[in-house]
Amino acid sequence: MSGDSIRGFVHADVPTAEIDAIEATHAPLVAAVRDLVDVAIRTTVPGDTVTDAAARVREVVTMLEAEAHPGPVGVSFNNEGRSWNWGNAAVGRRNAVAPPMAVEQVEPGHCRAALTLGAPYEGQPGIVHGGVSALLLDHLLGETASMGYTKIAVTGTLTLRYRDSLLLGPVELEGRVERQEGRKLFLRGTIGAPGSVAIEAEGVWIVPRWAAGEDLDAAAAGAVG
Amino acid sequence: MSGDSIRGFVHADVPTAEIDAIEATHAPLVAAVRDLVDVAIRTTVPGDTVTDAAARVREVVTMLEAEAHPGPVGVSFNNEGRSWNWGNAAVGRRNAVAPPMAVEQVEPGHCRAALTLGAPYEGQPGIVHGGVSALLLDHLLGETASMGYTKIAVTGTLTLRYRDSLLLGPVELEGRVERQEGRKLFLRGTIGAPGSVAIEAEGVWIVPRWAAGEDLDAAAAGAVG
Repeated sequence: MSGDSIRGFVHADVPTAEIDAIEATHAPLVAAVRDLVDVAIRTTVPGDTVTDAAARVREVVTMLEAEAHPGPVGVSFNNEGRSWNWGNAAVGRRNAVAPPMAVEQVEPGHCRAALTLGAPYEGQPGIVHGGVSALLLDHLLGETASMGYTKIAVTGTLTLRYRDSLLLGPVELEGRVERQEGRKLFLRGTIGAPGSVAIEAEGVWIVPRWAAGEDLDAAAAGAVG
Repeated sequence: MSGDSIRGFVHADVPTAEIDAIEATHAPLVAAVRDLVDVAIRTTVPGDTVTDAAARVREVVTMLEAEAHPGPVGVSFNNEGRSWNWGNAAVGRRNAVAPPMAVEQVEPGHCRAALTLGAPYEGQPGIVHGGVSALLLDHLLGETASMGYTKIAVTGTLTLRYRDSLLLGPVELEGRVERQEGRKLFLRGTIGAPGSVAIEAEGVWIVPRWAAGEDLDAAAAGAVG
């Protein structure tokens, strides 16, 4: 899967059918790993069982490490327009840190998502960690700023307003591009229990000069870095 | 470990030595689970090996599920002033979603942390997901707002300014309480590679009325919820 790299986005000459097959093979593994993360927090089995479990997990790590990329896997795309970012912290389909969130592109500049957050996403007791809501909103708004995956944009600023506690369980997110000025996109989004809003977000996303082919203006320079 | 609950904070009559022993027993398990999360993203072993690994992980889940809390574990504390939040998404010592971050209280109102972020925390290729930086900053500033664990405070607003890309690898965070007005604490923080700043945060934390024993003012009401 080696290939040309554009700003870390790797072109891989792998047919979509093969990528779909790899994802299907890995789905039961990552589902089991997500359940393992969850139960490792909740379990009250005796210490001997915990020690036995640790040894068994260590064996699986060794099995999987036998052939592996040495570092982060980044984002890849093929000639058919299929891309995959398996390690992404919010949406990575092979990353058990990610809930994962599946983002629905309602139309360019309007996205939503629905998912369930369990024990590993807790902050205050029984409440979704405020930082997890920030992670999901940042990601959803970033995908919204892509205007249906036609733009590359990076976060400039993000402001979160915590209006209400968000209980662990089913949550819904929504994001919209409100307006655009040059290479700057102004977005708003929310997360809450179904049908309600607990946290509001607003932010500015920037299309980098290299992606827009435009001159960089001074205001954006600091944000893009 | 059942006990009285105050706003979800559970008093448990378990000596600190026993809590320390449970953490020590679980440390190799959660370390192995963190490595498993990481290698499940990176592995390129054949499909048969992936399927075998999934079955083995599923067995461990069953072992640990035999005796377990049914849901999120919340935050507990004992008579000796020891507290534990094993499931916390940013710092939970038994939560493989958490890197975990260990927060150092330099003095009341001033915290810092140093940790290494690997493949599971990726956003853009090779870069720490902007939302992961938001999660860590939100948590660090929340602990900073506790003024050395003497106050309970919740996030009102949080603004993140993304100045530069933050590469996966070692990162450092710092947070300070800048000033206080009534039950509102104004904080600033940063995250970056060691010795530098990639992302700046500023936010308002609020001491809830029930924790302060004061009248709730209208401006704070919306934020506390």
